[in-house]
Amino acid sequence: MSRAAVTSTPINPVLANRWSPRSYDATKTLTKADLNASFEAARWSPSANNSQPWRFIVGFRGDETFNKIVPTLAGWNSAWMPNASAIIVAVAQTAGADGTPNHYALYDLGQSVAHFSVQAQTDGLYVHQVAGTDVEALKEAFNLPAGYEAFLTIAVGKLAPADDLPEALAEREKAPRVRHELAEIVRYDAFED
Amino acid sequence: MSRAAVTSTPINPVLANRWSPRSYDATKTLTKADLNASFEAARWSPSANNSQPWRFIVGFRGDETFNKIVPTLAGWNSAWMPNASAIIVAVAQTAGADGTPNHYALYDLGQSVAHFSVQAQTDGLYVHQVAGTDVEALKEAFNLPAGYEAFLTIAVGKLAPADDLPEALAEREKAPRVRHELAEIVRYDAFED
Repeated sequence: MSRAAVTSTPINPVLANRWSPRSYDATKTLTKADLNASFEAARWSPSANNSQPWRFIVGFRGDETFNKIVPTLAGWNSAWMPNASAIIVAVAQTAGADGTPNHYALYDLGQSVAHFSVQAQTDGLYVHQVAGTDVEALKEAFNLPAGYEAFLTIAVGKLAPADDLPEALAEREKAPRVRHELAEIVRYDAFED
Repeated sequence: MSRAAVTSTPINPVLANRWSPRSYDATKTLTKADLNASFEAARWSPSANNSQPWRFIVGFRGDETFNKIVPTLAGWNSAWMPNASAIIVAVAQTAGADGTPNHYALYDLGQSVAHFSVQAQTDGLYVHQVAGTDVEALKEAFNLPAGYEAFLTIAVGKLAPADDLPEALAEREKAPRVRHELAEIVRYDAFED
């Protein structure tokens, strides 16, 4: 069953075929080199005043960094995310060295992770960003400096059959993907009263 | 002169060739249909709990919406941005109908605009996101409902020669593109004290 996006006009196949699985192949491993292209894509993302407020902490399944991230995962995420080949902590520099807040930090981090995931998809890898994580525990575990915040975690790996998941997760995995209609998110004039 | 990203390993050419120009061809026009694929890409971006907290208001050069956006542009942006074929206001739904803040709204808006820009690049269009805009004036001009915030504006169009720009802008347009080294943004263990 294809999970490609249903669009009113064709889009770049890499974008159409991207989705966020929970079924990762726990036998596949990735190396630093395997993720370099994705991080290069993240690196060349645009940002306000080229501030590049993104940092990434990468753990590979079974290594010390990975094992420090796993206990911070909440609820169901701890049932599937440890099967991913890598888990990445996405870190935002939300304030400069002098404490000045960067209003664009989270927006720019989102862009950078989007570029990462487009390149990962190009390379046959799947990405699932997971917001339900104990970010305070991550901040402490990885000794983040002042002005840096752990924002979310990112699973990266190879797809496995959905039926390998526990039943409740497998059902979610196979449910239709849904989005607002295009007319709900794009307009050409002011909002109405 | 190529402005492609200089990477340690090849990346998807669409990502490598994306950059944020100021030199737009003021003779080129775009229609709603020309942007549909890019908005479909934005629409299918991932978001926390699939909340899809992105809305877009689109003006085409010379129309009423475009002419309402232009006076909100700050400083130098008003010198080049009106040459774009379209200017889009990126709107975030930062709080739900009951006032509950969405901590992920700006991050997810950033992802959605990144997907938009990857598709635009696929279609031969260039995108430049511009943070220096009077967002309060935009909020009022487009009657944004409670919980919605204008975040930034996005120029979209066809590239023109940099030398068509005023000299100071042309110089910036031709300056080398720079980013932090990969080792500065990616790490495999805790930050050091």
